[in-house]
Amino acid sequence: MIERVLILGTGLLGTSTGLALRAAGFTGSITGWDKDTKQSHTALGLRAIDEVASDPVAAARASQVILLAAPVYAILDWMEQLSNVLGADQLVTDVGSTKALITSAGNRLFNQPGRAGFLPGHPMAGKEVSGAADAEATLFQNAVWIFTKVSPSPADAEAVMSADAAALAKGWREWVAAFGCRTIDLDAARHDELVAWVSHLPQFLSTALTALLQTEVGDAPELTAVGGRALREMTRLGSSPYSMWRDVAYTNTEAIAEAIHALEQRLAHLRENLRTPELRDEFELANRFRKG
Amino acid sequence: MIERVLILGTGLLGTSTGLALRAAGFTGSITGWDKDTKQSHTALGLRAIDEVASDPVAAARASQVILLAAPVYAILDWMEQLSNVLGADQLVTDVGSTKALITSAGNRLFNQPGRAGFLPGHPMAGKEVSGAADAEATLFQNAVWIFTKVSPSPADAEAVMSADAAALAKGWREWVAAFGCRTIDLDAARHDELVAWVSHLPQFLSTALTALLQTEVGDAPELTAVGGRALREMTRLGSSPYSMWRDVAYTNTEAIAEAIHALEQRLAHLRENLRTPELRDEFELANRFRKG
Repeated sequence: MIERVLILGTGLLGTSTGLALRAAGFTGSITGWDKDTKQSHTALGLRAIDEVASDPVAAARASQVILLAAPVYAILDWMEQLSNVLGADQLVTDVGSTKALITSAGNRLFNQPGRAGFLPGHPMAGKEVSGAADAEATLFQNAVWIFTKVSPSPADAEAVMSADAAALAKGWREWVAAFGCRTIDLDAARHDELVAWVSHLPQFLSTALTALLQTEVGDAPELTAVGGRALREMTRLGSSPYSMWRDVAYTNTEAIAEAIHALEQRLAHLRENLRTPELRDEFELANRFRKG
Repeated sequence: MIERVLILGTGLLGTSTGLALRAAGFTGSITGWDKDTKQSHTALGLRAIDEVASDPVAAARASQVILLAAPVYAILDWMEQLSNVLGADQLVTDVGSTKALITSAGNRLFNQPGRAGFLPGHPMAGKEVSGAADAEATLFQNAVWIFTKVSPSPADAEAVMSADAAALAKGWREWVAAFGCRTIDLDAARHDELVAWVSHLPQFLSTALTALLQTEVGDAPELTAVGGRALREMTRLGSSPYSMWRDVAYTNTEAIAEAIHALEQRLAHLRENLRTPELRDEFELANRFRKG
């Protein structure tokens, strides 16, 4: 039923979505646009999109589903810009990393009589690199694609949009499932709280660790020799781009600060107990999480 | 030239060494022993060893090269026990995680007139699991195998042992190279300082993060759904066994505490700058380490 898709932002996630649509058998049109024309032309070369839009707003008006695949503030900007020009038979969805601001903006700017629908989404997949060149059709395989809503509210986001938009949202969920994703619905605030622990904390921790290592041993000639798999893994996210994570830090500051602070305290506790039986308790707690 | 090897401790590293020797074409005998007979019988089943020693000290006397593959304190215990019963035509080597204590014990208990040689070693390879069942012939491929000495001292550990032992040490280095390792020689104190940053800090950090997540969100039903690759990677080392890391914490306490403390400060700095341009500097430093 969905036949015309526009992807605004053809970086890693946007381009991977285009590739995943094609791999899952989508035969409609996929138009793409990126503020960095190198990204959109890479996406075109990979056949993730059929054409590069010259006017993204005109392209949005001509599409049924508009996917916003950009850092959070860029998504919010697009939402402002598109809310007045789209109609009730269209659906906007996104892949933004934090959901509280986007979900409430969605209900304010869209999901109103005469307006397009907005389905807030977040695939729990990504890489430490952000460009179209690293996109993969299989990026979302076995991942979870979360859809969010503002509580108290009906069971899912579709209940607050027009029937036409809800039908497109149902279709979009089916394509996401066809990518090999499990979809789940979460309250937006709960989403942001949870990802602060399981996604944002690991990222900022890896950034802090990697920056520290650069300062402390970055110029040690034996360094690359001595580091093993543990080092490579724990610093992989150190390559992540500031441009995307700045928006995460700004839009989920309180939850992230709380998680980082808790980790500082945990590290101090471990440091003070390197030679006491408390160290065993920490290892056992950690072992339990991994088994759980 | 090496024809009789004994592996004392047939866990992950000991058993992998037996498998790597065979894969590299070693045709001599490999005897094994472990205080946990399940481990030695698993190693036997995998053909990493030819037989399980019933008396490890007698087996040591009958071997040319004795590999100590155990946590650091168990290695130190074996060194005490073996130093009086071995002869100058034998070589003891090890795979212990910290090297200052082991290297100086090696020069005190071995590497003396009439005594066996001791070549302190540390392969920078491992897993978050410790048993023989997870051993692999390829575990050391492309890894670095470090040999240590006490400075000031001659160029390498062989210079302080008997000619017979030095010949066996040369032979052992050749087998290690045949495993696909690059061998490097480091001062033992420098080794411990460097691994505090690039190996021990990542481990204790992952333990602290994983224990924290178990406490904070371990029982959240959405948890396993929401976590992606970043979470899996950053918590993988949370499975590591206390038994091995306790000895690391005890034998390299000061350097580890210093590294953890520096990370606490770095995290606090990042937390206080989630909404300032300082955050960009941290990401850029981290990016530089990964490119370097």
